[in-house]
Amino acid sequence: MRIGIYGYGNLGKGVALSVRQNADLELAAIFTRRPPEQLKQQNPELPFVSASEINNWKDRIDVLVICGGSATDLPGMTPALAEHFHVIDSFDTHANIPAHFDAVDTAARAGGRLGLISAGWDPGVFSLMRTYAGAFLPDGCVNTFWGRGVSQGHSDAVRRIDGVLDARQYTLPVPAALEAVRSGDAPELTTRQRHTRECFVVAAEGADRARIEHEIVTMPNYFDEYDTTVHFITAEEMARDHAALPHGGFVIRTGRTGAQHEHRHVMELRLQLDSNPEFTASVLTACARAVWRMAAQGRTGCITMLDIPPALLSPLPAEELRAHLL
Amino acid sequence: MRIGIYGYGNLGKGVALSVRQNADLELAAIFTRRPPEQLKQQNPELPFVSASEINNWKDRIDVLVICGGSATDLPGMTPALAEHFHVIDSFDTHANIPAHFDAVDTAARAGGRLGLISAGWDPGVFSLMRTYAGAFLPDGCVNTFWGRGVSQGHSDAVRRIDGVLDARQYTLPVPAALEAVRSGDAPELTTRQRHTRECFVVAAEGADRARIEHEIVTMPNYFDEYDTTVHFITAEEMARDHAALPHGGFVIRTGRTGAQHEHRHVMELRLQLDSNPEFTASVLTACARAVWRMAAQGRTGCITMLDIPPALLSPLPAEELRAHLL
Repeated sequence: MRIGIYGYGNLGKGVALSVRQNADLELAAIFTRRPPEQLKQQNPELPFVSASEINNWKDRIDVLVICGGSATDLPGMTPALAEHFHVIDSFDTHANIPAHFDAVDTAARAGGRLGLISAGWDPGVFSLMRTYAGAFLPDGCVNTFWGRGVSQGHSDAVRRIDGVLDARQYTLPVPAALEAVRSGDAPELTTRQRHTRECFVVAAEGADRARIEHEIVTMPNYFDEYDTTVHFITAEEMARDHAALPHGGFVIRTGRTGAQHEHRHVMELRLQLDSNPEFTASVLTACARAVWRMAAQGRTGCITMLDIPPALLSPLPAEELRAHLL
Repeated sequence: MRIGIYGYGNLGKGVALSVRQNADLELAAIFTRRPPEQLKQQNPELPFVSASEINNWKDRIDVLVICGGSATDLPGMTPALAEHFHVIDSFDTHANIPAHFDAVDTAARAGGRLGLISAGWDPGVFSLMRTYAGAFLPDGCVNTFWGRGVSQGHSDAVRRIDGVLDARQYTLPVPAALEAVRSGDAPELTTRQRHTRECFVVAAEGADRARIEHEIVTMPNYFDEYDTTVHFITAEEMARDHAALPHGGFVIRTGRTGAQHEHRHVMELRLQLDSNPEFTASVLTACARAVWRMAAQGRTGCITMLDIPPALLSPLPAEELRAHLL
């Protein structure tokens, strides 16, 4: 199965690494808007190609993994490419998923292709868990917690404050809220009770740290509804202690069964990821296998991970899955 | 969607309760080998029918949920019924799943029906997690822990010892083993290091408790490879403290990504179930919905939960899943 990667940022790099972990997949091309020669000098073993040449690759790519940003790249990119390739993206702007789905569905049907959107871990693996748990425990409620992990969007927001040279924002679930949800009594929790935020900031020399801290903790939408802690650190500490992009979280559904609803059940999925982009990439790669298989069965249009039979994600044959994993 | 239940033990009772939690499902008949009139007296609201009449119900049942034991009931029952009905069972003898699959596949194809075997939580929900996690973290290892929960098979084995009036056996994961697995360093653990066993025993008056305890802890296959604790209790304590059938456990996969395998990831699913049969029943009920939908698409033969697109298990329409759960 020949995989193409469109875009070589953190996610695209992760997909390139992930393909190497899957013996049935082959990395055919990495399409980039930067000069391919420049990237080849740094990574001579990788097949960089100019994004402008992509239309010459229709017969040489089985599935194209689109590694762009949800805000500006994917809304145009995925529908445009879905007319010519079986595609996958990690579109994660929850509110716009229905519109993005429709755009990709129309384009993919027009081209007789299959497109998978919103793959990754949330949306993605967490969505699977919410769907399964909702089906298996219909009389119940589900809660999702994120962290401890780096939020790129919140880190960027802090970096835009005057006097901030660099910043990293961590989202953390509140342990007491996790316990309350696990206990299954469907507590009503406010935003502030669910998560806290922690910022590590490198300030410019002479900058007013009190003002920076105040601007952070009162920032509308991003921080004002949370309890936020701000730590000022040096550029060296930032490079040494905060270079990684860990993330993770919890999906917890509690529900009841029994003639008197007397039996309580808890289903809990936990992810603890050292590298958010590399795990996301690994999910996209497994999804590429499933998309190729479903396309081979004649499926066209747009799908999500909720439409994939789990066996199609696995490199193992169905007989082996039944004998050893079932 | 009209659901039939074949067999009215703990699991069948659970399915009858579970159908009531799903507005799109209707309980059409409960087939029993006991006199239906007798069961109707105890539960006048339930539609008991003699199992001998099942062939008259081919047009009145959409999916038949077979609630029998894996040892002697299901190997014959599921293939026989799969020729005439879309069926589901919870066959859980792991070693015999491939043979059972083949038998049900042959029968269901002959009758143009769809059969789902081995639904429940293990095999079932845990199998889903093992498959997903294996696909998303191919460079890794998976461990399953069971408990704290009641093992019916082990409880029965203790009850067969001379001088034992009643017994309940709990399986427990060893906390240190759980932590070692979560730490991701693929520890080699022996059977004894993974789980412990705890037995609560009501002994006959004058029975030799030391002998009973010795027979339990040295019992081949069941207990000899485990550290087992035996507690002697009264019949009243048994009835008061051990009437429930809780179970649960953990599936934990750790894996690595990155150019130097430097990033570690943990995927962990935890189930904590107050009632093993009622949760299993709830899974079977959701699977009935998916089987009916897949059969309507023309699918025949035998499948497992690994073949079901998650969206088909949910009562929610695809648009709503995408808008709210994705």
